[in-house]
Amino acid sequence: MRWTEIDQQLCSVARALSVVGERWTLLILRDAFLGTRRFEQFQHNLGITRHRLSERLSKLVEQGVLVKVPYNERPLRHEYRLTRKGLGLYPVLMSLARWGDDWMTGEEGVTLQYVHRSCGKVTRPLLACSECGEPLRPEGVMPQPGPSLQVIADDLAKEGRRNVPIPELIGRSRPQE
Amino acid sequence: MRWTEIDQQLCSVARALSVVGERWTLLILRDAFLGTRRFEQFQHNLGITRHRLSERLSKLVEQGVLVKVPYNERPLRHEYRLTRKGLGLYPVLMSLARWGDDWMTGEEGVTLQYVHRSCGKVTRPLLACSECGEPLRPEGVMPQPGPSLQVIADDLAKEGRRNVPIPELIGRSRPQE
Repeated sequence: MRWTEIDQQLCSVARALSVVGERWTLLILRDAFLGTRRFEQFQHNLGITRHRLSERLSKLVEQGVLVKVPYNERPLRHEYRLTRKGLGLYPVLMSLARWGDDWMTGEEGVTLQYVHRSCGKVTRPLLACSECGEPLRPEGVMPQPGPSLQVIADDLAKEGRRNVPIPELIGRSRPQE
Repeated sequence: MRWTEIDQQLCSVARALSVVGERWTLLILRDAFLGTRRFEQFQHNLGITRHRLSERLSKLVEQGVLVKVPYNERPLRHEYRLTRKGLGLYPVLMSLARWGDDWMTGEEGVTLQYVHRSCGKVTRPLLACSECGEPLRPEGVMPQPGPSLQVIADDLAKEGRRNVPIPELIGRSRPQE
């Protein structure tokens, strides 16, 4: 499979990466979450070529992660704002930041810290269960086929292939409509 | 700045991406979290070239995300297991999966669902505050300079540059030792 085809995979991680998995894209979004909105600011902060930045921003707009909003009429100028879909990537970025803080920081200490406004404390974001609120750890979570994967598993079972491991199933392409 | 230099950035997200930001790397880790351990299985599931897979796995071993463990003596064969550092990426992958489920899934329904063993329910993983346990949303969290960024901000203030925006600060390279 080619990288450009991963949007066809059943796996949700692969489909998410088909939108945010290119080099620089997650750093552009990090900047957007920290308040950057204008092309020149992104370029100044990231130090990438205008061509590459433009290509990445266009794709994020096309995918509905950012929206282009005019902030000046004459001359016409736009800025880029996170949509609801874009804001939904907050846990991805905070989890990457947390991992970087935990595993790639020396004695100099963390770069940013995060104050949770409602409780007033410095927070270390973690992954929690939507049902009981407890932290989620890999050994405490059991993945099982959801509706779309079950269809594939049932089809394979009809061909005599039972108990195909989940990683093999989710790497498959989605059935064509 | 070149992509190969992002490990030098102050930003924790950039440093995390210097380890896991290459194409395929997060999909290899997704497979590892789902139980894949052997080279041939990774290759079968992902359908990438042996050369690329080998390069990605070596980098993850070098960075301490995976460890190579012998499972057979004659002939000598190794498998790849997640280290503690690797297990720390669980929230990154689950957040990507959740976003893919929320925003990139059609009527066919989600691919995988996740049962939280301790409460027994199907969970939808969310980002929560380590201090009060409430869900974290971008508008409820205030980023502020941590120790290492404060040093840079203070140096700039001495040069007369005060109130440099955070996205500009964290895009800078770390001071050389």
